[in-house]
Amino acid sequence: MRRLEIIAVEGLPEVRPGDRLAPMVAACAALVDGDVVVVTQKVVSKAEGRMVAVDPDDPAAYAAVVAAESVRVLRRRGDLVISETASGFVCANAGIDRSNVPDGYVTLLPVDADRSARRIRDGLRAAPGVEVGVIVSDTFGRTWRQGVTDVAIGCAGIAAILDLRGTSDALGRPLEVTEVAVADELASAAELVMGKATGVAAAVIRGVDPSWFRDASVRAEIVRPPAEDLFR
Amino acid sequence: MRRLEIIAVEGLPEVRPGDRLAPMVAACAALVDGDVVVVTQKVVSKAEGRMVAVDPDDPAAYAAVVAAESVRVLRRRGDLVISETASGFVCANAGIDRSNVPDGYVTLLPVDADRSARRIRDGLRAAPGVEVGVIVSDTFGRTWRQGVTDVAIGCAGIAAILDLRGTSDALGRPLEVTEVAVADELASAAELVMGKATGVAAAVIRGVDPSWFRDASVRAEIVRPPAEDLFR
Repeated sequence: MRRLEIIAVEGLPEVRPGDRLAPMVAACAALVDGDVVVVTQKVVSKAEGRMVAVDPDDPAAYAAVVAAESVRVLRRRGDLVISETASGFVCANAGIDRSNVPDGYVTLLPVDADRSARRIRDGLRAAPGVEVGVIVSDTFGRTWRQGVTDVAIGCAGIAAILDLRGTSDALGRPLEVTEVAVADELASAAELVMGKATGVAAAVIRGVDPSWFRDASVRAEIVRPPAEDLFR
Repeated sequence: MRRLEIIAVEGLPEVRPGDRLAPMVAACAALVDGDVVVVTQKVVSKAEGRMVAVDPDDPAAYAAVVAAESVRVLRRRGDLVISETASGFVCANAGIDRSNVPDGYVTLLPVDADRSARRIRDGLRAAPGVEVGVIVSDTFGRTWRQGVTDVAIGCAGIAAILDLRGTSDALGRPLEVTEVAVADELASAAELVMGKATGVAAAVIRGVDPSWFRDASVRAEIVRPPAEDLFR
């Protein structure tokens, strides 16, 4: 029977600029080959020094950081800005946020979250010597649906999109829906054991289909080119 | 350590109009109190007789069914229509599709997928007598991101949105992101063990936070009122 386990990585210490995440995660999780390690943007950004000081009482300063991180603004309503980042992500406030960040600072998204994922994957391959997939996740809103879900902003060693073109359904006809964003589904699954308030910043997914492990990129596979987008 | 299991429900027979899904799922899964049962729209629609005959060689006939199921068209490109259904879902082709449906037929979305979920939940409470949450899932595309993911279109006994307003982050400050669409994350997690080609139409999620079990509705909690939507 096909079965997955989603396991919270508990006990991760507070992450500081310059920290190496791979050994920190490995110290808190008994990883095995074939695991997928999901790490939240927040700790990746902290480790990479992607924090800037912003006076919490100065909305204009915050807006300036959002503007600097945006290549295009899609919508504004009050303080909320929906914008596109340099990596092509469309999200609220260019992915900048304050939760679980020291007072007076905000985190920015990693410059290249696929690279961040590769770095963690390479680190875990070196020690403890496991072959795992790595996903960097973040919490985004959606059009038309209330509430946020976690999605993948970077990945390494695990498919971003599962391409089922040429596959048949259970009745032998070609599938209509052929590109499944499994990295986003893995990120959402991981969020279920993390919570927003608990400070759990990583999770392990065990039992993932072995055929999903390959070189991959969220930016190349999931970010929709603006010219193909019906809602930009 | 916080841990979830996602278990494919295998061996479900082909579902026909009038079938009762609760005993069919219960026969294929050893359910326990506190499980969340995720059932795909496809089998729910089949059980509820939400199938219509459409000549597969007549695109106009297919388009007419899509139009009949749409209350508003947001975008068109070639054969693709992004429209809003009577329930308020915005999705491709009003949620109509042919995969895993007998030749010459398509399924429509359930009239009220929250009610569909309640019916399955009530059935499972009667026999085998378990207290579970139920989610009806479907596969939707998204703006700005390629690939599809599974989301919840109906739920019963399990939160659609987890409302964290008034909650603090790990550093004691109010959370910025306060409404998590856990029903969508549970639907995505379930898809990871289902696959599109295998005909696995249900999954069980075990170990969900007990505080998430309550009366709930995808339509009331997740569907964003059009007036509040920035992208309609």
